[in-house]
Amino acid sequence: MKADLDNFCVILHEPRYPENIGAAARCCHNMGVPQLIVVRPYRLDMEKMLKMATHEAADLIETMLLFDDLEEALGPFQHVAGTTARIGRQRLPTHTPRDIAEKLIDLGPKNRIALLFGSEKCGLTNSQLRLCQSLVNIPTTAFSSINLAQSVMILCYELFIAKGYEEKVQPKLATTRELEGMYKHLKKTFMAIELTNPQNPEYWVDNTRRLLGRQELRSRETKIIRGFCQQILRAIENKKHFKQ
Amino acid sequence: MKADLDNFCVILHEPRYPENIGAAARCCHNMGVPQLIVVRPYRLDMEKMLKMATHEAADLIETMLLFDDLEEALGPFQHVAGTTARIGRQRLPTHTPRDIAEKLIDLGPKNRIALLFGSEKCGLTNSQLRLCQSLVNIPTTAFSSINLAQSVMILCYELFIAKGYEEKVQPKLATTRELEGMYKHLKKTFMAIELTNPQNPEYWVDNTRRLLGRQELRSRETKIIRGFCQQILRAIENKKHFKQ
Repeated sequence: MKADLDNFCVILHEPRYPENIGAAARCCHNMGVPQLIVVRPYRLDMEKMLKMATHEAADLIETMLLFDDLEEALGPFQHVAGTTARIGRQRLPTHTPRDIAEKLIDLGPKNRIALLFGSEKCGLTNSQLRLCQSLVNIPTTAFSSINLAQSVMILCYELFIAKGYEEKVQPKLATTRELEGMYKHLKKTFMAIELTNPQNPEYWVDNTRRLLGRQELRSRETKIIRGFCQQILRAIENKKHFKQ
Repeated sequence: MKADLDNFCVILHEPRYPENIGAAARCCHNMGVPQLIVVRPYRLDMEKMLKMATHEAADLIETMLLFDDLEEALGPFQHVAGTTARIGRQRLPTHTPRDIAEKLIDLGPKNRIALLFGSEKCGLTNSQLRLCQSLVNIPTTAFSSINLAQSVMILCYELFIAKGYEEKVQPKLATTRELEGMYKHLKKTFMAIELTNPQNPEYWVDNTRRLLGRQELRSRETKIIRGFCQQILRAIENKKHFKQ
């Protein structure tokens, strides 16, 4: 059974733009994080939040918790992972999103976990980072700053991947029997159209193997290619009859 | 030497909202993708694009190429990876962002590569997907749709990670000598404050080892702890003198 993210929560501290709150809610919904908490938002504009959340994540906006105090908001959480753009000067070692996701997924089943994001303007201050058990930095090009909702997406996406998810349908590939049947049919066709030098009858087939072998040919595709060969062979056969 | 993303380009086909074009430009900048192409945008509002791009990515908006025709826009690229929310019915197998990133980074040095994104409303149609060499699907919770610029971010982020990046500064951890010096100092302190049962003098030190050993203690931190021990020992010593 796959883990889920039921114990996870995204917390935005003093977000400035209601659009970012809405966009963060949509990220949470996309990746299965069930709760959003907002601490001292600069402005709460329901219309702007809901527009960015889209109808899919409207319930995350409606059930969003509001706090006036960060420490109170963090109260029930056993682990708080804070995001920071600055590296190395903090008390704690800084993780990559991928590392922290693995760690948090391990903690997840028994602990409530908060992903904490600072304001768009200055991020989390040192006194806010002190409330964190771990720090995360999203790698970027030098001196580059990531949009708040984009940071939320990257963290939630890494959690979604780390927890594992049901693999989507994969196409049914051709069997060896189907592939070899197709290559025989191709060889016969190459001979019929006199593409093949009788001195080296495998030359064109080998070239074709190299070309088609790089694809993951599906069962259905070998049939299409064989159908094509058959029509060529038939057309040549008819021409012969016509000549006689 | 690390690879770079100089041969990569993000292409938005018929994007509806200028905010998404701006946000996509910022993602490209964050992750080092040097070019953005827009095909038949619904509306180009410079102010809205630049607001979301921020000054950091303004040059990506200014150097952005505009096309009326997708096939023409894709002309110079050797590999086009198209994003799709639908799985399994396409001609091509669908990759995860992580898989495709590794594959594209391998192709990168010798080939121009386009990441192609469809419109917010309907994504890429089958006839547009036919122009792609590979398809990518971003995994999400069921029936969930990701914002266009968020999809751009996830793909660019995976490319940035896959190409490799210079590791940021890691803290200097304590040596065994520093750790063992600290534990001896702690033991002496525990004895001085009569925390330690003389029958089992290692008991509290072992507990402390279990506690501190889980952290990656830095050189500096062992010194802080030893400073603390020294002050306790001094305070006790003074008290003794005072008593005498």
